[in-house]
Amino acid sequence: MKSITSFIKINGGINMRYLSAEDIKQVLSMKEAIEEDKKALSLYSKGKADIPLRTNLSVEGYGQSLYMPGTTSGEDPTLGLKIVAVYPDNPKSGLPSVPATMITQDAKTGIVNAILDGTYLTQLRTGAIQGAATDLLSKEDAKFALLIGTGGQALTQLEAMLTVRNLDTVYVSDRDLEKAEEFCERVTKEFQKTFSTKFVAVSDPNEVVPKVDIITTVTTSRKATFNGDLVKPGTHINGVGAYTPEMCEIPAVALQKADKIIFDTLDGVLSEAGDIIQALEKALIKKADIDGELGQLVNKDIKGRKSDSDITIFKTVGTAVLDIIVADKIVQKASLQNIGTILN
Amino acid sequence: MKSITSFIKINGGINMRYLSAEDIKQVLSMKEAIEEDKKALSLYSKGKADIPLRTNLSVEGYGQSLYMPGTTSGEDPTLGLKIVAVYPDNPKSGLPSVPATMITQDAKTGIVNAILDGTYLTQLRTGAIQGAATDLLSKEDAKFALLIGTGGQALTQLEAMLTVRNLDTVYVSDRDLEKAEEFCERVTKEFQKTFSTKFVAVSDPNEVVPKVDIITTVTTSRKATFNGDLVKPGTHINGVGAYTPEMCEIPAVALQKADKIIFDTLDGVLSEAGDIIQALEKALIKKADIDGELGQLVNKDIKGRKSDSDITIFKTVGTAVLDIIVADKIVQKASLQNIGTILN
Repeated sequence: MKSITSFIKINGGINMRYLSAEDIKQVLSMKEAIEEDKKALSLYSKGKADIPLRTNLSVEGYGQSLYMPGTTSGEDPTLGLKIVAVYPDNPKSGLPSVPATMITQDAKTGIVNAILDGTYLTQLRTGAIQGAATDLLSKEDAKFALLIGTGGQALTQLEAMLTVRNLDTVYVSDRDLEKAEEFCERVTKEFQKTFSTKFVAVSDPNEVVPKVDIITTVTTSRKATFNGDLVKPGTHINGVGAYTPEMCEIPAVALQKADKIIFDTLDGVLSEAGDIIQALEKALIKKADIDGELGQLVNKDIKGRKSDSDITIFKTVGTAVLDIIVADKIVQKASLQNIGTILN
Repeated sequence: MKSITSFIKINGGINMRYLSAEDIKQVLSMKEAIEEDKKALSLYSKGKADIPLRTNLSVEGYGQSLYMPGTTSGEDPTLGLKIVAVYPDNPKSGLPSVPATMITQDAKTGIVNAILDGTYLTQLRTGAIQGAATDLLSKEDAKFALLIGTGGQALTQLEAMLTVRNLDTVYVSDRDLEKAEEFCERVTKEFQKTFSTKFVAVSDPNEVVPKVDIITTVTTSRKATFNGDLVKPGTHINGVGAYTPEMCEIPAVALQKADKIIFDTLDGVLSEAGDIIQALEKALIKKADIDGELGQLVNKDIKGRKSDSDITIFKTVGTAVLDIIVADKIVQKASLQNIGTILN
């Protein structure tokens, strides 16, 4: 629902819509989210997104709140803001440590038209960006994948891989084997109706690194989460965690072996992603080894995998343009399908 | 409702609340809003408010959107954001040209706890800040007032004057006399049960400037809205409109005659208020003539009116700290009284 005038015609007034995680799940599939993320990064790489520096407020003794507004231009402009708070003590009261809320505005009138659960939106768009990269960079006949990390972002990361490739087995690894086993049990139930893939917990990711076609690592580790020497030709690697300069997931050896290194945004990864920053600082890779942005790949301004033996790497730290474009699509569809709580 | 833990105890879950203009009117009186605005400016003048520069996004061909987050520290910290969009063509579609939405967060958990109609909130807090100034600066026995301007902010400006002083008559002036007459008719109905004040439209404000105790001017004029030579000793003047360097409401002569010149925030007025900026530029007044901030007066760090013959002037351009503190109080009270639409 882009134009508020059409909105009025449909609904007879200016409405604001609240969309819970359940509403969002009902409205937008992972497959659609992946297409929206591609569109978002395409706009970003074309210079059609205005994503200012986020504003960071500290509440002394409690936490921090980040405000991330953004807009995209073009035929269907979008406008919105994500609020993400970081409150490490929240879990003591049974509350999320990183609560998030998304606000969308009708870009043609400026009016706030929806409030969305920002936690699920973040999970969805973060899974989807990896899905977009895996779709564009991994071998088309990839059969075996490895997921490292079973935290809050893991489920949508898995769903994204399953959505873009017809996988036989996904191996799941966590520092705590029991967690990996529980995760496999849970996703077997979650996905048994949709996918025929097997989920197998492994105690050491390196057991399976030599045989998988796709590796997705989504942790807050401070050292590489697998052995780069074991990566076989043809593998596609997604680095989704490690979102600060101190963190690291992708081994430098893998970066050195890679035929393609693609980021979601050059600015974001080069200022935030420890695995890349550290490898550049230690001169284990050089800037010329970086091939470009995923949006450039979508726009066909750069090329992706050239052969089945290429090793490809995608690193993402996220950008507000993903939130804005995906949320806008959710709000459009929710409006057409009359989903969510209407506020007037 | 400050602490989310007490919220959980009361409501059994984490809720977000939507508060319409009607909800806000039901929850917070002008009298209470005035006290909250005093508190807000007190915190601001004590350096306990963190109000970063707003972020301004342009949507090419349509309008602009401003994001104004802020926080206050202390025993009861507050946190929130106002979104104000400026879309000059909206009225062609029957939509507001400056739609606004307020988002509040529980400062102790970072969780978004309410979405409020930002248009009425702005009217309320803008009326209330003048009410606070009129309460602290005008003569206690003020009987006659003049309101210049009958636009969107006029009603709460009038209500604020009526709330803090027992007025016999308010004269109302507008460039268009008919508008002033319609406004008087409307407010007579609106306030007849609450106040015994008479409302009288005047074709020229200068007819009554020599006899009134309070002048409140709330327009977007580019030249002084009344004759400063006619201002009698003892008058208190509120400059509420003129929020850009090109605008001007308060005549320089009045500024020169004034015994007290007080601003809501020094930073805000000195960078935005044309009447003050122009008078300083033309050296008709000097910086030393400015006595300080209203918050300093609340904090008793500076003194107000010294005698019944003092001329006092208050100039306001607004600050996000008013939105955040007033909204927080509204949300606390709405939670206790179970008012608004609950989202979960």
